[in-house]
Amino acid sequence: MNWLLPEYIADALPSEAARIETLRRNLLDHFRVRGFEYVMPPMLEYLDSLLTGTGQDLNLRTFKLVDQLSGRTMGVRADMTPQAARIDAHLLNHQGVTRLCYCGSTLHTLPANVSAGREQVQLGAELYGYAGVEADLEIVRLMATAFDRVKLPLARIDLGHVGIFRALVEAAGLPGDAEAELLALLRDKDVPGLTESTAAVPSPYREALLALPTLYGGPETVNRAVACLPDLPAIRAALEQLRHLISSAPELPFSIDLADLRGYHYHNGIVFAAYCPGFPAAIALGGRYDGAGKAFGRARPATGFSLDLRQLAQLAPAGKSVRGVLAPYAGADKLLASHIAALREHGETVVELLPGETACEGPSCDRKLVQVGGRWIIEAIQED
Amino acid sequence: MNWLLPEYIADALPSEAARIETLRRNLLDHFRVRGFEYVMPPMLEYLDSLLTGTGQDLNLRTFKLVDQLSGRTMGVRADMTPQAARIDAHLLNHQGVTRLCYCGSTLHTLPANVSAGREQVQLGAELYGYAGVEADLEIVRLMATAFDRVKLPLARIDLGHVGIFRALVEAAGLPGDAEAELLALLRDKDVPGLTESTAAVPSPYREALLALPTLYGGPETVNRAVACLPDLPAIRAALEQLRHLISSAPELPFSIDLADLRGYHYHNGIVFAAYCPGFPAAIALGGRYDGAGKAFGRARPATGFSLDLRQLAQLAPAGKSVRGVLAPYAGADKLLASHIAALREHGETVVELLPGETACEGPSCDRKLVQVGGRWIIEAIQED
Repeated sequence: MNWLLPEYIADALPSEAARIETLRRNLLDHFRVRGFEYVMPPMLEYLDSLLTGTGQDLNLRTFKLVDQLSGRTMGVRADMTPQAARIDAHLLNHQGVTRLCYCGSTLHTLPANVSAGREQVQLGAELYGYAGVEADLEIVRLMATAFDRVKLPLARIDLGHVGIFRALVEAAGLPGDAEAELLALLRDKDVPGLTESTAAVPSPYREALLALPTLYGGPETVNRAVACLPDLPAIRAALEQLRHLISSAPELPFSIDLADLRGYHYHNGIVFAAYCPGFPAAIALGGRYDGAGKAFGRARPATGFSLDLRQLAQLAPAGKSVRGVLAPYAGADKLLASHIAALREHGETVVELLPGETACEGPSCDRKLVQVGGRWIIEAIQED
Repeated sequence: MNWLLPEYIADALPSEAARIETLRRNLLDHFRVRGFEYVMPPMLEYLDSLLTGTGQDLNLRTFKLVDQLSGRTMGVRADMTPQAARIDAHLLNHQGVTRLCYCGSTLHTLPANVSAGREQVQLGAELYGYAGVEADLEIVRLMATAFDRVKLPLARIDLGHVGIFRALVEAAGLPGDAEAELLALLRDKDVPGLTESTAAVPSPYREALLALPTLYGGPETVNRAVACLPDLPAIRAALEQLRHLISSAPELPFSIDLADLRGYHYHNGIVFAAYCPGFPAAIALGGRYDGAGKAFGRARPATGFSLDLRQLAQLAPAGKSVRGVLAPYAGADKLLASHIAALREHGETVVELLPGETACEGPSCDRKLVQVGGRWIIEAIQED
């Protein structure tokens, strides 16, 4: 019992690891054929680079280390999205659209919730350099078709738009601390608290802030929002973007939640969260975060999504498991060795027993190589 | 220039990342068809678990963090081999042979040498539960065929055996500090220092220790070693194992270096290092480390090898690069959308331009989808 791992940290043993690897290849291929180029940002960066443009929340979740070469503080990445934004802004220097994807471990000092681990395998795709809603549409579709590809049904895709709350706060002239308080209350859907805290907010912004937690439901919620929110240009534009997105992808199970303000300090446009049947937490999260590259030298439009492959592997249906072939030790038997090599060449797993071994406890085998009249043939293994 | 990464830490941008990913899949498939099961140990463990059975060297290279949940010290893995041994000993509990493989980031506080980064992508394979030299043979062949598979020629595979030095130290009755001193001198091939430090060592052990740095060269070096080393049972067995390994794999470019004592505190049998033409450092390292799982509950025979995929990607010849197809924005054009989908289904990269875009700076495209007389066809893109 000395060798327990830290809480919320786990090995992935062969069957789980194989599922994660299959999903990883499948989804990176899904991204590749759509023009998303794979990049590998490092596990470690200077902290100021890693946390640029992100909120306090990510800071608290980031492990800190001292760089023995520079004395500066480094962080172990807790999110790869800002790294991708840095690569787009600072290294690639494309003027037009850049599509990037990535897959790697991220670490958190504390688990985000009781079902989350402290080590994720974050897989994501980001589109830089295009401000139009067509980019949001491409990313939402990329995410939805990724779920199709791994045969995990989507219960719904919740859409929000952080520009609405931002416009209300601005129009009402609320100071930063009031904004932070209202944000927390909205996240918790704490209507009594919201009623109290908005007591001094002028009309019609107070009514609008109180309406936000009620603006969820089917796509028709956008019409309700148009009717009950003040007619500010930013709000009009936000609702128009949502309407465009919904009508452009009628095949997708959209729903609306205008009080979903996750990642508010980071995002600035349409945000979305994908849910699967029977699982309460969002499986994939994304949205627009224009300007994230500004501190790296270029403010670029940006939208993307990511998910945790370890969580996905728990939910996605297992593919057909292919079993292997058991072979005796070939040693100097060139004929047997060439049979084994040929099977492996065709992608078959062949477990070659070592001298003295009689059984295999490793990969499950349903066939064996046996010698019959001088020839090697494959024969089914009888189940006990 | 504020956004420089820490020294010896680097992004892998699209072309390098694609090469690493191709090698990764290729080699994990190479392991899989040979019965090596993929596992994913965590990036973080309690420090005592991570460093069990390893030397001081790995301790100094390991980043330390405090676990906010337990207050205990954790380490970011600097080597995945001890993690694989923990999984074999503690979790899988197979009585027979276990074959495991892994691939993941490892971090070092300081670079091992000027050409090494502080973040590696360590890829390796380990075989547990078999003490015979046939297991060493399987691992050495697995490594050599991995190089074949990625078309990187091997200049040589240096073989050593840490049991020889260990037997000499034991037979000569040398204390631990003298052993450490001689080990350092042998590693540096410091013959004058060795001559001085062995002045008080009794014959024939002194002569044998002085002979070790001369025992390198072709496979016939084993015969020289038999002639000039004392006839101790452990030395006889070690040389017999080397001879067996060499004669069993005549296809491999073996050479001998009996003073190669890298990883001495960890290894206890045959060790090996693979070199490529024109590159001075070893590209892959491995060897036997029986008993590594003892602290985890079971002392198991063990042998394996690993390499850094980032380094391999710099040396292995690039595969043929497949270029993509450029497509106009499909929007509501169902026919174009279905053409794009069909191409992607066949594994082609199709970059769909967004409205208003005229060129793609992302994946290189050598063809484009164009409409001719109502039909969509693929046409070569004229190079400027």
